[in-house]
This record gives sequence, C-alpha cells and structure tokens, in this order.
Amino acid sequence: MRMQALWPEWLKNYRRDWLSGDLTAGLIVTVMLIPQSLAYAMLAGLPPEVGLYASILPLVAYALLGSSMTLAVGPVAVASLMTASSLAPLAAQGTPEYLTMAILLALLSGLMLIAAGLLRLGFLAWFLSHPVISGFISGSAVLIAIGQVKYLLGIRFSSSGVLSTVEGLIRHLPETNTVTASIGIAALAFLFFARSQLAGLLKHIGVPARAADLATKLAPMAAVILSTVVVASLHLDETAQVSIVGKVPAGLPVLTLPLPGWDALNALWVPAMLISLVGFVESVSVAQSLAMKRGQRIHPDRELLGIGAANMASALSGGFPVTGGFARSVVNFSAGANTPAAGVISAVMMSLVLIGLTSWFHYLPHAVLSATIIVAVLGLIDTHTLKEAWHYDKADATALLLTFFGVIMFGVEEGIVIGVALSLAVLVWRSSHPHMAVVGRVPGTEHFRNIERHQVETLPGLIALRIDESIYFANAQLLEEKIESLLLQQPGTQHVLLILSAVNQLDTTGLGMLTELEKSLAARHVLLHFAEIKGPVLDRLRDTPLGERMKDRIYLSTHQAFLACAA
Amino acid sequence: MRMQALWPEWLKNYRRDWLSGDLTAGLIVTVMLIPQSLAYAMLAGLPPEVGLYASILPLVAYALLGSSMTLAVGPVAVASLMTASSLAPLAAQGTPEYLTMAILLALLSGLMLIAAGLLRLGFLAWFLSHPVISGFISGSAVLIAIGQVKYLLGIRFSSSGVLSTVEGLIRHLPETNTVTASIGIAALAFLFFARSQLAGLLKHIGVPARAADLATKLAPMAAVILSTVVVASLHLDETAQVSIVGKVPAGLPVLTLPLPGWDALNALWVPAMLISLVGFVESVSVAQSLAMKRGQRIHPDRELLGIGAANMASALSGGFPVTGGFARSVVNFSAGANTPAAGVISAVMMSLVLIGLTSWFHYLPHAVLSATIIVAVLGLIDTHTLKEAWHYDKADATALLLTFFGVIMFGVEEGIVIGVALSLAVLVWRSSHPHMAVVGRVPGTEHFRNIERHQVETLPGLIALRIDESIYFANAQLLEEKIESLLLQQPGTQHVLLILSAVNQLDTTGLGMLTELEKSLAARHVLLHFAEIKGPVLDRLRDTPLGERMKDRIYLSTHQAFLACAA
Repeated sequence: MRMQALWPEWLKNYRRDWLSGDLTAGLIVTVMLIPQSLAYAMLAGLPPEVGLYASILPLVAYALLGSSMTLAVGPVAVASLMTASSLAPLAAQGTPEYLTMAILLALLSGLMLIAAGLLRLGFLAWFLSHPVISGFISGSAVLIAIGQVKYLLGIRFSSSGVLSTVEGLIRHLPETNTVTASIGIAALAFLFFARSQLAGLLKHIGVPARAADLATKLAPMAAVILSTVVVASLHLDETAQVSIVGKVPAGLPVLTLPLPGWDALNALWVPAMLISLVGFVESVSVAQSLAMKRGQRIHPDRELLGIGAANMASALSGGFPVTGGFARSVVNFSAGANTPAAGVISAVMMSLVLIGLTSWFHYLPHAVLSATIIVAVLGLIDTHTLKEAWHYDKADATALLLTFFGVIMFGVEEGIVIGVALSLAVLVWRSSHPHMAVVGRVPGTEHFRNIERHQVETLPGLIALRIDESIYFANAQLLEEKIESLLLQQPGTQHVLLILSAVNQLDTTGLGMLTELEKSLAARHVLLHFAEIKGPVLDRLRDTPLGERMKDRIYLSTHQAFLACAA
Repeated sequence: MRMQALWPEWLKNYRRDWLSGDLTAGLIVTVMLIPQSLAYAMLAGLPPEVGLYASILPLVAYALLGSSMTLAVGPVAVASLMTASSLAPLAAQGTPEYLTMAILLALLSGLMLIAAGLLRLGFLAWFLSHPVISGFISGSAVLIAIGQVKYLLGIRFSSSGVLSTVEGLIRHLPETNTVTASIGIAALAFLFFARSQLAGLLKHIGVPARAADLATKLAPMAAVILSTVVVASLHLDETAQVSIVGKVPAGLPVLTLPLPGWDALNALWVPAMLISLVGFVESVSVAQSLAMKRGQRIHPDRELLGIGAANMASALSGGFPVTGGFARSVVNFSAGANTPAAGVISAVMMSLVLIGLTSWFHYLPHAVLSATIIVAVLGLIDTHTLKEAWHYDKADATALLLTFFGVIMFGVEEGIVIGVALSLAVLVWRSSHPHMAVVGRVPGTEHFRNIERHQVETLPGLIALRIDESIYFANAQLLEEKIESLLLQQPGTQHVLLILSAVNQLDTTGLGMLTELEKSLAARHVLLHFAEIKGPVLDRLRDTPLGERMKDRIYLSTHQAFLACAA
C-alpha cells in the first residue's frame, strides 16, 4: 500500500486507450535509440555495450520520478562529448579506469541532481540565458561534427582541441581509407537525403504525412542494417581494413555501484557539476516546450529528481551520463507517446536487444556511426535564435557568439563556464547602467511620463526622477552621480522626488547611498522625497534610520508627491 | 605648452593659501608612512627598503593622474598580504626571484588598472557589494593580525593557512623570546592606549582637540623611535636575540623596468587582477567618502588611471603593489590636505629619509613593526556594517559573514573570489524570485495597488498582474508559471493584463516566453494586454512579431487598460 503511494500519477491513473500511442512511440524511439546509443558511447570513448546499458534502467527511473510525459531519456551527444573531454586528462580511452571514471561521473552527476532537486534548486537552470544555451549547443555540435570526420574517412590520429584536429585531418588526409570513406560518405549522403527530402518524396507518392515523417526517423537504422550487411558479406573489415564495432558482449548489465575514492571525487566533481547543469538545462527546455504544446506542466524540481535518478540508474547498470535528448523526445512526442510508459517499453526492447541481438552489431562500421552522429548534431545547430537575438538585442547575440566560439576554441567545459559568466555579466552590466527618466505630469491626468518623450507639465524647483532599475551595489554610485549632475543643471532646486515604481530591491549598499544622499541634500537645503515605493521595499525601509527621517516625505503616488511639493 | 595641457587641474589653478594645509598634511602623513611602509614591506615578505621605494614615485604619479584631492597612496595592509599570499607558491621569501615577482605584480597590476581606465571600466568596481567588501577587509585584518603574533613574540616557524598558524603558535609558545615579547607587547599596549585613550586624555589636560587627535597618529613613530633607542643602547639584538630590521641600503631606488617572461605572466596575471580589483575598490571607496564630505567629486575612470600609474611607478622604482590606504587618507584629510600636493610633499620627505636616514632603522625591532601592523589592521575590522546589514537584509549579512570566514579559512584570493560570486549570487537569486502583485484600482483615483495590501476595486474576468522585476532568463519561467497558476484559480478569465512599470529590461529569453505565452493564451480565448511599458523596452518590443501581434493591446497607463478591458 505504501509503495503504491509513491507511484507516479500517470501510472495510478493509467487509461487503456493511452497504450497504443505509448507502444508505437516506444517502438519507434527504440529503433532510433539503438544506433544512437552505440554512436554516443563511441563519442564518449566507451565500448558500444555501455551505450546500450545506459538505455535501459535510466528510462525506467525517469518514468517513475520525472514530470514530463514525453521526454525521451538516454545517452545524448553533448553529454557524451563532455564525458570524453572531462575524462581525457584522467585516464586513457579503452582502459578499465576510463570506464570506471565514466560510471562515477554518472553517479556523481545523479547525486548532485537529486540533491539539487531535494533542495529545490530547479531555478538554477534559469541562470543560463536562452541565447547562451543556443550558442553552447551549436558550438558543441560543430565540435562533435569536426571530431567525427576522421572516423568517417577511416583516418587514425590523436588530437586535442579543434585546431589540432583540423590540422591532423589535413596532414593525414592522404591516408584516407577509400572503402571506409565511401561507406561513410554514402551513409552521410543517405541520412541527409532522408532528413531533408525523404518525407516530401514519400508524401508526394501518396504515403500518409505522419507515416512519411516517421519513416525518415528510421533512416539511421536502415543505414546501420544495410552497411552491416555489406561489410559482413564482403568481409570488408579484413579485405579493406574497415573499422568495425566488433564483439559486443551479450546479456544484461550486472548491477554494481562503484564507490569513488577521494582522488576520483576530487577530479570528477567539477565535470560532474557541469554535465549535470548542461544536461538538466537541455532536458528541461525540451520537456518544457513539448509540455506547452499539450497544455501540460513541467516541475523543475521534479525534473531534477527524474534526471538525477536516471543517472544513478545508469551508474548502477554500468552506463555513463544520460539526460533527455532533443531529437528523440520530439519523435516520441509526435509518434503519440501519452505517458512515460513509452520509455518503459523502449527499455524492455533494449533489454531484448542486449540479450539476443548484440552479435548483429559485430560488422557495423564505425564510419556509419560517425555519419549518424554528424547528421544528428548538425540538426542541433540553431541559427534562428542568433538571427532573432541579433535583431532584438545585440548584447544577447554577442553572448551567443562568444559562447559558440568559446566552446569551439577552448572546449565544452570552458565554454559552459564562459556561458554562465556571460549570462551574468550581461545581466549585471545592464542593471549597472540603469535607465533613469526625469518625468512630468501628462496634462489632465494623474499619470507621469518621461519629459523627453511626452508633452508633460513640470514644477519649478522640483526634480522628479524615475529610476528604472532596482537600486543595489552595482548602480548605487551611478544613481548618486545622476542626481548630483541634475542638481548642477538646475541650481534653484528645492525638492528631489525619486519615483521608485521600478525599484524592486534596495540592498544594503543602495540604502547606505540613499542615507548619505539624504543627509548631503539636507545640508544644501534640498528635500528628498520618495513616491510609489513597492510594499516589500517600504516594509524594510520603514525600520531604518533613513525611513525614520523620511517618514513624512514618502507618498503613495507620484501625483500626491507632486501636490505636496507644489504646496 | 602641450605638456602643460596635460597637467592636472589642481596644479594649474594652485592657490597659495592651500600650501599650509598641504604642507602640514604631507608632514604628518610622512611620519605615519615611515613605520607603515617598513611594516607592510615586512608583511609582504620583502626587504624594508622596498616599502620606502613604494612610498615615493607612486605618490607623485597619483598626484598627476588621480581625481581625489585627499587620497594618500602607498603600501597598504591588504594588498601587502595579497602580495605575500600570491607569491608564496612561486618563490621563497628573501630570494631575488621573490623581489622580482613582487615588482612584476605591481607592473601587471598597474597595466591592468590603466587599461581598465582607458576602457572606462570603472563601473566594475561596483560589482562588489558594500557588505562583501566589509567582510573581505575584516577577514583580511584578522588573518594579518594572527600572522603577526609570531613576530610579536619572537617565535620562528613557517605555516600556511590560519589553522596551521594557530597550531604553530600553540606548539612553539614555549620558545617565546621574553625580551622580544616584552618589547612587542609593550608597543602593542602603548599603541592601543594611544588609539583609544590618548586623545581624550590630552583634551582633558587642555590640549586643543585637533592637536590631540593628530598626536595619536604620531604614536607609531614614537614607538619606533623609543624601541630603536632601547634595542640599540642595550645591544638587545646580540644579548637577547631580538630580531631587528638590520641594514637598510641608503640612496634612492635605481629606476629599471623588469619585463615579465611568459611563465611569470602566466603565474601572476590572476593575482595581479585580484590585487587590482581589491586595491581599486578599497581606494575608491575611501576617496569617495572623503570627497562627499567636502562636496568634491571622484571620477572612477580617472581613479583607475591614477592608481594604475602609481603601481607602474612603484614597479619602475623597485616597489610592490600600492593603493590608496584608509587610515592615512583619513589623517591626510583631517590634517587639512587641500590637493595632492600633500602627497608630493610626502614623497620628497620619503626621498630625504632614503638618502640620509636609513641607518636609523638598523636597530628597529620587528616586534614593534608587528605591533604597528596589528593595531592598524584591527582598526579595519568593521562590525557596524554587519549590524546594519543583519538588521536590514539577512542575505547581505550572510554574504558578509561568508566572505569573512571565506577569507580566514581559504585565504585572501579565494576570499575575494567568494565575495564576487556571492555578490552576484545574491543579485541573481533575488531577481530570479521576483515579487508579483495582483492589483486593483484605489477607489476614486487612477492609481492601482496590490489587492492584498490595499482596499481596491477589481474587474471580473480580468487578472491585472504587476511584475516587480525585469523579465529575463533567470525569472521568465517563474513568471509564466505564476500566470498559469492564476488562470487555474480564476477559470472565467478573459483578459490578462501585465503591468510592466517595473520591467526595466526584457531580454531575448523573456521575449521568447511572452511570445509563447501570448499564443498559448490566445488558443484558450484569453487576451494578453500590456500597460505602462517603459519607453526603452517598448522601442525594442515594437519591432518584434510579439509587438506586431499585440499592438492594439498596449496601453500607456493601467487606467486606460482597465477601461479598455471593462468595455
């Protein structure tokens, strides 16, 4: 009975007519998930089966704890890239240490997300502005695509950073394996065609729209099957040295929980935090935009628990960091998923694949996985937000571009730190240069507007200044300078009225400035007045020495203040 | 002629009657500066003459470029501590490398400050809130005082961090040099007495108030002279192993400019940036508070140039990082300094000391310098701001305490980083949880207030929501959730009116949210309206798809919007 109380709402109220949608969506997502989970494991520098392991229990864990009805959880491109880049300095790819570190990364990330969820820190996700996220995702996509070219061409070299990768590609280009490159480029061309033309073509020949759209999502699986058959039948791995996936161990993962030592903890907590942040932000924005289309709601704190539990489950089953993916969630949504049961169905199917079908992947060429990755990530490049931001707000567009180039030049972890710093810097820079307007009364009304924009009446001897920003440490100084310079321009001033309708916060630094200002004005026989102070600000001001001194000069409306100063 | 155009205003318009004040102040500051420059060089781990070198040219450079009339520039406690702590991992105290690094630190810090001044980045100083600065200075003061106790007692051991220092003091306490400790504690007691009681006592016996106050500032010099005479006459350095300053080379510093190599640059740029930030913030707040008392003005960008030039000059003459000091500036001000000529006079006097009087410092005991430092820094501990902040704003008080303990536990550099991060975190946390008020009309007026605080009239079918914060990435989500939850509470709603009088910024993320919201409301037959949009926000909104869709539903005043929704 108690157990049941913890069951999610959707399971308690499950309706039979939801099942067909969930079943269809679960099947289609599985067909996408198989090649993607192998490909993202490769991107993370891990054996292919780890990708499959990370595609079972995490889906079930999210289904039980998450709040989105349609989010498809599992390995995703950006988190896989971040895993590879954060483990690179710590262990060599292919070693048992590397795998253990990847599992620990999922474990730490899961613990952090769950802790954040319990502490109700979901709002931290909003510390990254939308343009910065867009720049980060686009930059990561470019980084991933460039990194995959060598697998596509069958070239081998090691590199770190985008410049050394490009340099390596140019230098090693003559070593291209022609057969590998042919398979890779053919797969790439096919996948691009499928993405951009296939649906239109199918609709043109009379296939129903929805079926045509779904067919395009199955293209990666088709490429996988076709290329595997070709390589296996012609023994291209031996005759032409085409790099293949090789033996994938069959059977479900053994559940174990590695415990991190102090050294590992010390090395991994920062990457785990960054992966958690990025994974959560990516996941919750997808979940949000899908939920809005159906009038459903997402609870950020529940999402933290859901994604956190999915990562814990991944670690428990020998997997690596997972989160909600963009492309698969959209497919899940449009294939008609009604509840997270679709995810549970995918998990069951993936288990069956692991138990019985892993030998089928033996001859799958790496080049086709790379083609899958490239097509998937190029779909993440977002020029729309850049155009919009460039048009609307140059500061946001600049932050987007700096984050984009920051990721490409310095790497993903540095990129996300640059992004957070830029988000905050834009915020502080803006509010540290507040808009302030000297206002007058719109004739015949009780309404006051900027004297430079509207025909208004003013009162001689009164400066009425509306401050369009909270008063706090970053702008208190500037505000004081503004008032002093207005006083210099209008020497006969007897009253300074500050209209605080836009002052949402007044911090200790701002209070200190106003206290000093009031004294300094009083010494010059100028009276300071406040109008339209917000309730929460006034509540705190009242109980301070400044509030005490000013108590007869605080007015509910600018109109009343105007009348009082006129009298 | 051209040269003269670059001369500062105060020099071009120098009035003869300013000279007596400048001369008095220059003399008194010199008497304070001599022991302090020796002491702060010791605190920075440098030979005593380096402190004297840093007290000549920097004063002249600031006089030519700074904007404060009364700031006293030179070695200060916090910057000296930061110098020692940032060089500790790079070179051993007493080596030529250590000295070179200290000079490079001043050079880099000077270059950074000048660059910031030319780029007009003075506003960056306001990124540290007043409570955080207060916590930082108090924490540094405690750290410095604890670090000086071993010199006061004549114990020798090396330590890093406050815990290991305290542990070392306890373990080595039995090794206390009784004679050194007697001198040190006597000096300490004398200096405390001078600071707290002497002025009152002198006034009580009829000495004029101003003379009495100034006499207390000469106490450190008296302690220096007295202890030097005692140690020299009794040969306590040999008979009782009292640690003394020893030979201080005579003569002015040779002007040379060391050029940093890449390694040094790489190791020093972060400490140089932190020292610049702290030095500038400390300096400009002192300058500001003194200027306000005389109705003068400080120009932050000019201050950057002034302090930057002072550091360049310090590096050129073999000195270490300098800035405007609190105590000396206050003395300079109250001794009647009218212009930076007072600083030039101090510089001339310091040159004379270096040329002819360095041998006088030979027998000066280190313990007395430590006593000087302890008394000086304990004066920097600020409990007033803590009390005020605790009363007014717990978040600010918490930031103050965390910075204070951060400095003590993790060190000065970490402390200042914690401080900046906390300042920003408090800012973002506040604006990410905006106050929002459902409003109604105050009967008989055109004024609208919170329905929970005032007796107001509302309109059925209308939700009028005033948003008391800019709409941007950190709160866009919460705002949308608030509106959705209001709609759930009031099912018959036909109009949602957002009153944007407090929305000073609407960033790309916020615009995206409002665009989605408007569409989603329209689909539910609810109309969105805006009132009291600020001019700058409206200018940008007008030219977007949302602005286009909303153009007939944007009202100048809430009153007009109310009438329109009622119709």
